[in-house]
Amino acid sequence: MSQTYDQLIAHQQKLSAVHATMGLLGWDQETMMPPGGLVYRGEQLAQVASIAHELATSPRIAEWLAECESDIDLISDPTSGSAVNLREIRRDYDRNTKLPAELVAEVARVTSAAKAAWQQARKADDFGMFEPHLQKVIDLNIAQAECYGWAEDGEAWDALAEGYEAGMNAAYVQGVFGPLRQRLVAFTNELLDNGAAPSAKLNDIKLPIDAQMRYVRMVSEQIGFDYSRGRLDVAAHPFCGGTHCHDVRLTTRFHEDMLTDALGSTMHEAGHGMYEQGLPADKIGQPAGDAVGLSIHESQSRLWENHVGRSRGFWQWAGPKLGEYFGDAVAGAGGDDAYAACNVVQRSLIRVEADEVTYHLHILIRFELERLMARGELGAADVPEAWNSRYHDYLGVEVPGPAAGCMQDIHWSMGSIGYFPTYTLGSLYAAQFYETACNQLGDVDAMFARGEFTPLRRWLNENIHALGKTYRSEALCEHVTGSKLSADPFMRHVEGKLRPLYGL
Amino acid sequence: MSQTYDQLIAHQQKLSAVHATMGLLGWDQETMMPPGGLVYRGEQLAQVASIAHELATSPRIAEWLAECESDIDLISDPTSGSAVNLREIRRDYDRNTKLPAELVAEVARVTSAAKAAWQQARKADDFGMFEPHLQKVIDLNIAQAECYGWAEDGEAWDALAEGYEAGMNAAYVQGVFGPLRQRLVAFTNELLDNGAAPSAKLNDIKLPIDAQMRYVRMVSEQIGFDYSRGRLDVAAHPFCGGTHCHDVRLTTRFHEDMLTDALGSTMHEAGHGMYEQGLPADKIGQPAGDAVGLSIHESQSRLWENHVGRSRGFWQWAGPKLGEYFGDAVAGAGGDDAYAACNVVQRSLIRVEADEVTYHLHILIRFELERLMARGELGAADVPEAWNSRYHDYLGVEVPGPAAGCMQDIHWSMGSIGYFPTYTLGSLYAAQFYETACNQLGDVDAMFARGEFTPLRRWLNENIHALGKTYRSEALCEHVTGSKLSADPFMRHVEGKLRPLYGL
Repeated sequence: MSQTYDQLIAHQQKLSAVHATMGLLGWDQETMMPPGGLVYRGEQLAQVASIAHELATSPRIAEWLAECESDIDLISDPTSGSAVNLREIRRDYDRNTKLPAELVAEVARVTSAAKAAWQQARKADDFGMFEPHLQKVIDLNIAQAECYGWAEDGEAWDALAEGYEAGMNAAYVQGVFGPLRQRLVAFTNELLDNGAAPSAKLNDIKLPIDAQMRYVRMVSEQIGFDYSRGRLDVAAHPFCGGTHCHDVRLTTRFHEDMLTDALGSTMHEAGHGMYEQGLPADKIGQPAGDAVGLSIHESQSRLWENHVGRSRGFWQWAGPKLGEYFGDAVAGAGGDDAYAACNVVQRSLIRVEADEVTYHLHILIRFELERLMARGELGAADVPEAWNSRYHDYLGVEVPGPAAGCMQDIHWSMGSIGYFPTYTLGSLYAAQFYETACNQLGDVDAMFARGEFTPLRRWLNENIHALGKTYRSEALCEHVTGSKLSADPFMRHVEGKLRPLYGL
Repeated sequence: MSQTYDQLIAHQQKLSAVHATMGLLGWDQETMMPPGGLVYRGEQLAQVASIAHELATSPRIAEWLAECESDIDLISDPTSGSAVNLREIRRDYDRNTKLPAELVAEVARVTSAAKAAWQQARKADDFGMFEPHLQKVIDLNIAQAECYGWAEDGEAWDALAEGYEAGMNAAYVQGVFGPLRQRLVAFTNELLDNGAAPSAKLNDIKLPIDAQMRYVRMVSEQIGFDYSRGRLDVAAHPFCGGTHCHDVRLTTRFHEDMLTDALGSTMHEAGHGMYEQGLPADKIGQPAGDAVGLSIHESQSRLWENHVGRSRGFWQWAGPKLGEYFGDAVAGAGGDDAYAACNVVQRSLIRVEADEVTYHLHILIRFELERLMARGELGAADVPEAWNSRYHDYLGVEVPGPAAGCMQDIHWSMGSIGYFPTYTLGSLYAAQFYETACNQLGDVDAMFARGEFTPLRRWLNENIHALGKTYRSEALCEHVTGSKLSADPFMRHVEGKLRPLYGL
């Protein structure tokens, strides 16, 4: 390797250490920081972020890159660590240097105010309090999109979405989501109009929080999260944080009832965590050693949450342990009750409480609105009506007010337009990966019933985690499954599972 | 204020945010990090430290300083925030830029190896394994001292000690420690030869760790540590960490027996913590808002640990609560038993287990040896003999081997020569501050007996904490007490308390 390349990578490792440190500050803020610490934590994070920004936009990167990109030894094999590093450093550098400093500062100011206003407005269920802030967020996103630019056959939304997922664009997403919407609406109608809903009675039982913690921790350990390189703590909004593959921090939340919520949340974050723990340790601090992006990350969390945690085989193993951990409190409920309770489908207003099927209708609505916002065709004032009419049409529910409607999510208040589709793409990737894994591993449901999760985790390790960022999302999907991303495996998964459960 | 000054302070606040972040990484490593995290944490800390070093040695600081130091508005009042900031930034900048980068890197390499070797050698009780490393540490300290330089009437040790306490030098320390040694030896002999030792039986009782945690937390809250801006966790070697005055993290440790050890440790760290919480919040990130230095910091921890936590008044309040927290387990022991148990004096081998009196003989020995090391008059090979003969002469104990002798402390393996005296100076400052507080506040012992610690904490807040770094240690002592530092208040304190306890 050339000396220039080594300098570039050393610089990148320093930047990565700062990002890892910001990750730890973020984790600490949500789990350990005393309330008074908030006064200065924002300032502290802003200072560290400004150091990261200086490192990420250093003109030396451009000089190093220019030299390395003409070095045939470094780039001849596009899947080599050096080629992947150069490709990703180039992408990030070009993007990071496209925004003028004044716009970056303006975004920070506007989103800081917008987030505070959103919290107040949501509490008051008053969209008028949030509207001017949302309009500024939309305007600033359009301004940013213009700085970033987009392909000739693309549109403004693409420039924003690129910040969350390399290569994601509206036409591609629409190509996947369009047919999916019709199938989801039809399948939801089929289940709810003709089927008999399984019982959710398990989630009415109140169970002690400390026993729930022991139970979900046991499950996360059994499925393969490595606690010698990780932790599990409580946070209001669960996330997977930490600093690198040797130190991954899960969080979860508990209610006295709703055991399957705590378990699903924990398995979801453990899925993220096992991806992080499975990244190539010899490439820490290099882009080649990072996760592919948000969609593939979400595929790992949803695979464990939905394909494993909501399967019959899983509950054949985990069900009999309910009595062991909760004793009489669980009132004799077992695996069948849990399997039923975590597979109830219903039309609902709130995305984060939605089931495995209708969830994606929530996402599709947000994607449609964001695309219009980015084009300048939907202003803040018209968002509630556009939202409510789609909830009526796609989900069949009437939105009572903006708190349970277009102000329910934090994303727009934080300035994020283009993020939501990664959630649904994640579910589709999860289903396609899972189908391939089943074809290659045999009867995984029977393995789950025996508490054997290692074959599946190993398969994910070898086929996805260990590759780091070698391939981008779509290319990884083809590399692993032999096919382009499609909604078919996902529909096969939910239809195959839910029709029998609903007696259809 | 001039624009140049504002730029200098903004730069300093960025540096301070990085230091605060390193503080949090350090705290996390000792309390929360999963064991596997260690693999990369050292690298992460080194990267962040290198960013801090770049910021601290930026040539722009020299330019800004030169301009500000000739601005009469900024420096006319030496106790103004601007004058204090300029004084301290100048001191740090000059010191930080004096070591060549190769020497800094060599120190990092040598101390990393020395620390590992020390751990092995101490376990094996084999000085030979550590000796070559200690010799390198001594040689590198001498090389560093030569880079830093020292006053014409000073010596090499001064240049090293300056790194731990601004203005500390061997002649000054010797002037205080010389007479102290004779008085300590004489007083120890008086107590142990003629007195009757109080009973330590309370510390034989085994008490549940969770009840101990509740008890020491209650005490730390009552004496004034603010948990809305702080935490208390467990660590193998207790310390006070965190990031700034709004977020202070105490740690403590527990044994099943030895309640007074856990309590003393907690009150000690809470003393550090209350100092941090009392620093001027409007000067976060500026030197003027920082603690004075290690000696004054130690004065605050030892004041609460020894002058409060080992007083009769304190135990008149805390004693009756023993039954409340420990029930029958405490076997009817009360305040008198605790007061006795935490005031036993004995000749011993291990510094960190030593009592309030003999502790300082341990420190004096280390200071004498370090002074010789820095002069090049004591090589590593001769350290055990020099150590053992002083333990025989001053403490009257025979050292059985190096693990319980000259290898008991981590400091030298970490490259720290010149640190130890700050512990004893801290005790002397504590006694002198405390005597002044008693003169001004009246019968504080009676207040303690009623659980009233606020008057003392407020007095410390107003007279010491809120001043930040306005005065250096010696000047602060004169400002607060009206006198130069002396060993007299400390000797009055221990003699006045222990003679009656020993029936003398």
